[in-house]
Amino acid sequence: MTHRRAAVIGAGHTRFGVLPEGPRSLLRASVDGALTSVDRGLDRREIGEAFLGTLGFSGWQLGNASAILAEEARTPGIPVTRVENACASSGFALRAGIRAIESGARDVVLVCGLEKMTDSPSSRRRYWLGVSGDTEWERMAGLTFAGVYGLMASAHIREHGTPLEALAEVAVKNHENALKNPNAHFHKRITREEALAAPLVADPLRLFDCCPVSDGAASVLLAGEELARRFTDTPVTVIGDGAASDTLALQNRASLTRLAATRRAAEEAFQRAGTDRNTVDFLEVHDCFTIAELLALEDLGFADPGGAAQLELSGVTRLGGDLPVNPDGGLKAKGHPIGATGASQAYEAFLQLRNAAGDRQVKGAVTALTHNVGGSGASATVTLFSVR
Amino acid sequence: MTHRRAAVIGAGHTRFGVLPEGPRSLLRASVDGALTSVDRGLDRREIGEAFLGTLGFSGWQLGNASAILAEEARTPGIPVTRVENACASSGFALRAGIRAIESGARDVVLVCGLEKMTDSPSSRRRYWLGVSGDTEWERMAGLTFAGVYGLMASAHIREHGTPLEALAEVAVKNHENALKNPNAHFHKRITREEALAAPLVADPLRLFDCCPVSDGAASVLLAGEELARRFTDTPVTVIGDGAASDTLALQNRASLTRLAATRRAAEEAFQRAGTDRNTVDFLEVHDCFTIAELLALEDLGFADPGGAAQLELSGVTRLGGDLPVNPDGGLKAKGHPIGATGASQAYEAFLQLRNAAGDRQVKGAVTALTHNVGGSGASATVTLFSVR
Repeated sequence: MTHRRAAVIGAGHTRFGVLPEGPRSLLRASVDGALTSVDRGLDRREIGEAFLGTLGFSGWQLGNASAILAEEARTPGIPVTRVENACASSGFALRAGIRAIESGARDVVLVCGLEKMTDSPSSRRRYWLGVSGDTEWERMAGLTFAGVYGLMASAHIREHGTPLEALAEVAVKNHENALKNPNAHFHKRITREEALAAPLVADPLRLFDCCPVSDGAASVLLAGEELARRFTDTPVTVIGDGAASDTLALQNRASLTRLAATRRAAEEAFQRAGTDRNTVDFLEVHDCFTIAELLALEDLGFADPGGAAQLELSGVTRLGGDLPVNPDGGLKAKGHPIGATGASQAYEAFLQLRNAAGDRQVKGAVTALTHNVGGSGASATVTLFSVR
Repeated sequence: MTHRRAAVIGAGHTRFGVLPEGPRSLLRASVDGALTSVDRGLDRREIGEAFLGTLGFSGWQLGNASAILAEEARTPGIPVTRVENACASSGFALRAGIRAIESGARDVVLVCGLEKMTDSPSSRRRYWLGVSGDTEWERMAGLTFAGVYGLMASAHIREHGTPLEALAEVAVKNHENALKNPNAHFHKRITREEALAAPLVADPLRLFDCCPVSDGAASVLLAGEELARRFTDTPVTVIGDGAASDTLALQNRASLTRLAATRRAAEEAFQRAGTDRNTVDFLEVHDCFTIAELLALEDLGFADPGGAAQLELSGVTRLGGDLPVNPDGGLKAKGHPIGATGASQAYEAFLQLRNAAGDRQVKGAVTALTHNVGGSGASATVTLFSVR
C-alpha cells in the first residue's frame, strides 16, 4: 500500500550534559529550537499533535509528561502521547508521529525526546534505569547495564577475536567527533592508550567504553511530504522505518552477539524505503557502550558478524571516511539522556542532510540511517531519511 | 483525506479486582482471551504490531513493559510501543493502534491495557498515582486525586445546585450494572441511602463516590476494515476518534466544572466519524469519581452544563433507559486498573455492539462512545465504534 510520507521540516536540540535546567525548561528550549529552525516559519498553532519519548521523566518526580509537553510547547489542547520504550523511547515516539502523518490524521506533528537524569540520587537512577533490563533474572541478581554489555563484549571477543583496540577506537572516534558538536556532553579528546588504560567498569568495558549520564532534550517537526515545501525548500523525507522487539532477558536469546531486534528493524526500514545499504551516506547508531556500535554495524548489515572491528580500525567510520558513524559524537560522547536519544539522532540526520552540520558535516550526505535501541536490545527502531 | 479504517475483530478481559496474578499473567490472559474471541480464529503470527497502555506497570517493580508484552502475547519480534498517559494510557494506546492500521503500515494490531496496583505499598501507589496530577501546585501541597475531584464536585454544586443524590445515583447505577458483569471488581448492590451516609473521603465525595484500586488487563485486536470480515461476520468499526490535552494544574484552567480536553476530543471524534450524538446508543465514560460521570455527560455534549444530574436521576442512563451509561459498571464498580481502563471500555463496546453482553446487553446497540481521561483532565480520548 502506498501512503503519504512524512518529512522533517525542523529540529531543535539542547546541550547534553549535567545541566542546571529542569525538564520543563529543556522541553521548551528544544521545541522552540525546532520552531526557529523552520526556514519559512511555522505558527505553533499548526501543530496538530505531539509525541514525547521519555523514560523516567525526571526520575518520576513529575508525571503526566504529555500534559507538561503541551504546556511547554505552548500548544494548548493538542493531543500528546507519551511513549516509553526504555532507551528507544523517542525512537518509538518518532514512529508514532510518522504514523500520525502517514494516516492523514495530522498535517504537522511534533516529536520530542527528553531525559533529566542528574537530579535523581544515583541509587534511584540505577533502579529506574535497571528496570529497563530484565528484573527477575538480571537486575535482582546484581547485573547492571554495563554488566549486560560487558557480557556481550566478552562473547564477541570469544566468538570473533575482537581486539580491545576496536572498542577503544569507537571511543576515540566518537570523542573526536563530539569536539565538533557544540551540544555534546564531552568536549575531550582521548587517545587509544588512555581508553585502554582507563578503570574497568564491567570487564572488558572500561570507563571510556561507557556513555555518560546526561540531561537533555531534542525535538523534530514532521509534516506531510506534500506540504513540507510550504515550510522549507529542503525537507528531509522519512523514506522508511522499522521496529522490532526481542526477549527482555539475555538468557532467552539465541545469541549474545547479535541483536535480533536491530536486524529485523533494519530489514523492515530498507524494505519500506525500497532502497539498500549502499545508498546510506552515514549512520547514527545506538552506542551506549562501545561494543554496541560494533554490534550495530553488524546487525544493521554494514559489516559481517565479527567484521565491524576491522571497519572501525580501518578509519572507514571516521568523519571523512566512506561511512561515517555517529558524526555527532554518539551516545558515547554526545551523551545519552535516555528518552532524548532517538529524537537527537533525527536532529542530526536533519542537520547533516541539509548540509548544516558545520565542522562535522558529512560531505554530500543525501541519505542517513538512525538506530535506537531499548534496554539491552529488547526493542529497536531504524529510520531512513533522505533529501533526494 | 479519506483513509482506511480500523475495526475491532476480537477483545479479551481479565477479572478486575484484588487479584493474585502478576502483570505478566494478566497480560497473557487478556491477549489469549482476545485471540479466542476472534470468530474464525487468528494466528497470532498475523499480529504485526502491538501497543500497551500502562501507568506504573506494577509500581515500577518491572520496566520495559513493551518487551514483556511481546513475550506474554507470544508474538516474538513484533514492535511494541508502551504508551503512558496517566489514566488514559490505553485510550491513547488504542489511538496509536488505530493510526498503525489507518496508515497501512499494519493489517492486524494488538492493543492492551494493564495495571497491577495492589502489590505496591499504598504509600508508593499514592505517589505513582499522584504524579499524574500537578506536582508543584497540587501534590506537594497535599492534594490527592479524590481531593481534586472533590474540588470539582464542590464547584459543580456551587454553580449548578447539583444534588448529592445525583452523585449517589451514579454509584447506585454503576454498582447495579456491575452485578451483571462477571469481570467487575464489585458485585455489591448499594442503596442511595448507603451512598449518602458512607464515610467522607474528600468533601463532598464519600466512599461510594470513588473507584477502587484494582488489578486487571484488557486487550483488543484491530484489523484493516477491508480485512476484518476474513476474521468475523460482525467486526466493530472505529468510525471516529479524537483526543486532546489540557493544563496539568487545575489553577490554570478556565473552569473547574468543565474538562476542556473531553470537549475537544469529542468534537474531533464526531467530526471524524461524520455523525452526531443522537446516533450513539450507549456510553462508556471515565467515572473515576461519581462527579466525573456528570462532567463527562456534559462535556461530551449529552447534557447541558448542570444538566447531567437530572439525566441521572431520571433513569435515562440506567440499563433499559434511553442512553445507558457505563453498562459494565464503569470505573466506579467494574474497577479502574489505571492503564487497563481505555482498553476495557473498547472491550465493552465490542461485546455490546455484537449483542454479546449477556444480562447487561444494551438492546439493539449499534453505535457506542468510549471516553478515557488522563489525570484530572489533562488529557482525554473519545472513540466511536459502530457495527452499522
